[in-house]
Amino acid sequence: MLSVHILYPKTEDSTFDMDYYCSTHMPMLADALGDACKGWGATAVGSGAWEAIGWAHVDNQEAFDVAMKEHGAKIMADVANYTNVAPQLVVGEVAK
Amino acid sequence: MLSVHILYPKTEDSTFDMDYYCSTHMPMLADALGDACKGWGATAVGSGAWEAIGWAHVDNQEAFDVAMKEHGAKIMADVANYTNVAPQLVVGEVAK
Repeated sequence: MLSVHILYPKTEDSTFDMDYYCSTHMPMLADALGDACKGWGATAVGSGAWEAIGWAHVDNQEAFDVAMKEHGAKIMADVANYTNVAPQLVVGEVAK
Repeated sequence: MLSVHILYPKTEDSTFDMDYYCSTHMPMLADALGDACKGWGATAVGSGAWEAIGWAHVDNQEAFDVAMKEHGAKIMADVANYTNVAPQLVVGEVAK
């Protein structure tokens, strides 16, 4: 199982609309992944180095790559609708 | 619900024993939290900026603080048994 974490850095003037993220952006990602999406979630941090963390479990790297190739541009274009910082994508294998 | 992410940076000579992490360290954290631990997981990254990410869901901040006060020293002392990098603790509220 592939794990995709999305880290949003906190900066002096960073903004993050968690309502939009959970109601629109992450469902957009989940829709793009279709049956390959095995769950997703989000954490509001808002202190220290990070504004927020999102995550999704995806069947495998290929399914993620296929979805990103087809829908990645739309998903990335949506980022400006909820934050002014650049997400850091962290992709790995679920160990547990 | 509190979300605790533990980020392990990747450095030039960083090491991470995921078997130990999943079989010994995270169960130690879960035991310390007791019924307040509502799940945990781990992702092996090993490329880019991060070696690994661990996470746990905890009932609330108070339960986390109580467990860390009582068991934190033992848990932190165990870190050297699976990695040579310092974990970054990221605590927030589960939004979804």
